[in-house]
Amino acid sequence: MLIEGRHFAAGAAPRSLGHKALAVNLSDLAAMGAAPRWALLALALPSADEAWLKDFAAGLFALAERFGVELVGGDTSRGALRTICITAIGEVPASVALYRAGAQAGDDIWVSGELGGAALALSRPDIAAAAKRLHEPEPRVELGERLRGLAHAAIDISDGLVGDLGHILERSQVGAVVHYERIPRPALFEDPEIEKNCVLSGGDDYELVFAADPGQRREIEALSTELGLRLTAIGSIQKGAPKLKVLDAKGKPLPFAPAFEHFR
Amino acid sequence: MLIEGRHFAAGAAPRSLGHKALAVNLSDLAAMGAAPRWALLALALPSADEAWLKDFAAGLFALAERFGVELVGGDTSRGALRTICITAIGEVPASVALYRAGAQAGDDIWVSGELGGAALALSRPDIAAAAKRLHEPEPRVELGERLRGLAHAAIDISDGLVGDLGHILERSQVGAVVHYERIPRPALFEDPEIEKNCVLSGGDDYELVFAADPGQRREIEALSTELGLRLTAIGSIQKGAPKLKVLDAKGKPLPFAPAFEHFR
Repeated sequence: MLIEGRHFAAGAAPRSLGHKALAVNLSDLAAMGAAPRWALLALALPSADEAWLKDFAAGLFALAERFGVELVGGDTSRGALRTICITAIGEVPASVALYRAGAQAGDDIWVSGELGGAALALSRPDIAAAAKRLHEPEPRVELGERLRGLAHAAIDISDGLVGDLGHILERSQVGAVVHYERIPRPALFEDPEIEKNCVLSGGDDYELVFAADPGQRREIEALSTELGLRLTAIGSIQKGAPKLKVLDAKGKPLPFAPAFEHFR
Repeated sequence: MLIEGRHFAAGAAPRSLGHKALAVNLSDLAAMGAAPRWALLALALPSADEAWLKDFAAGLFALAERFGVELVGGDTSRGALRTICITAIGEVPASVALYRAGAQAGDDIWVSGELGGAALALSRPDIAAAAKRLHEPEPRVELGERLRGLAHAAIDISDGLVGDLGHILERSQVGAVVHYERIPRPALFEDPEIEKNCVLSGGDDYELVFAADPGQRREIEALSTELGLRLTAIGSIQKGAPKLKVLDAKGKPLPFAPAFEHFR
């Protein structure tokens, strides 16, 4: 559910909003290896603003059509704050669905794309490439489907790497070591402290983080080439308590901010 | 999507809200003859109010358990206005699903239960029986499933008989005559004008209105007895333009208020 004033600004471009509102749902399906099929939209608006609706619909349907998603229902009502609630439904054979609970000690930890760009846009809305990451995230639908039978566990990074990888660790009851320098990031940062916060704890990138057996490295690299999507091994799953260690270039533990809380 | 201040008062009982938020969705499934299976809940609250959440969950889960509905996902976030968005998913064999488009000239028009009670509660919140209809509607799940193969068309009455029956007429491209005196209503009304508005145009009753061949009368009456639910033939589907005529006890046309508009 995206609410004006909390998840987006009152003046946010409606086309981007339509895209993003669906994209974040498709991203959740991708993280389970599901093929998206249907979506339902509940929409509250202060008035039936036709220009806004037209652009919002254009953004939503452009993405829906790209992935063969059909809008099959929903609801409209009047509300003081624009509020967008999309439910997306997809299909995946139960035997190959990706969960948070399957990571195993010794697995590589991979991320798609680059992290931190979306979070940078919150403090630097003037950087166009960062703003695009924040307002028009690309759900990793093809990647999710191709990770069926390849990844042991997966999740999409909506609340930051630390928090979302943390969900895998908790559900799989394993620890992890991540090498900070290996995490791919856009070449947009000036301040190293802001960079660290954005890369490790910044949300809204909607990349996938997944765990896979080291024996799959060649296959994952070939998949990266085939999809034209960067896939990078950034660390490994460890035996033990569900704790994440982040190491700097010298192998020293790097402190990081706690994970995002929805009710914060 | 139910929004505080528009669809419910800030002080509304959270247990009733939990019930109603799910009930209105199950009602939509019932109107298609579907068996409810899963629900997703997106919830925005100004703060994580545990007492409120406990009662809200109690109302929602009591209804969910009664119909075997599993809560399989959703979202929580902070928002200035309490906002509840539920998506319910059900199953029905495609060949026997009920649509708005199947009504045929000569069909009887039936309604379940009584109409107008929920709408009465808007002006007379002191009448407990009316308030219960408004705040804790009963979705006609068993009836919907039993109407498979029996009804030609169905819809649930969320926005008023006139408006919702109007959807059947438009989609089926037929007209209808309804006999006002035959419409069952609770014995709670004092003013006949308010009664007429509530019975014909009042929303929120979540009863079903359906069209069925007159040859099915005996079966529908037996179903009524079996379910312990009043089912009443109130008129008939007519050839011609999708217009609804309401006749009074003397057979004279009765004027009525226009249908509810979501963006009004």
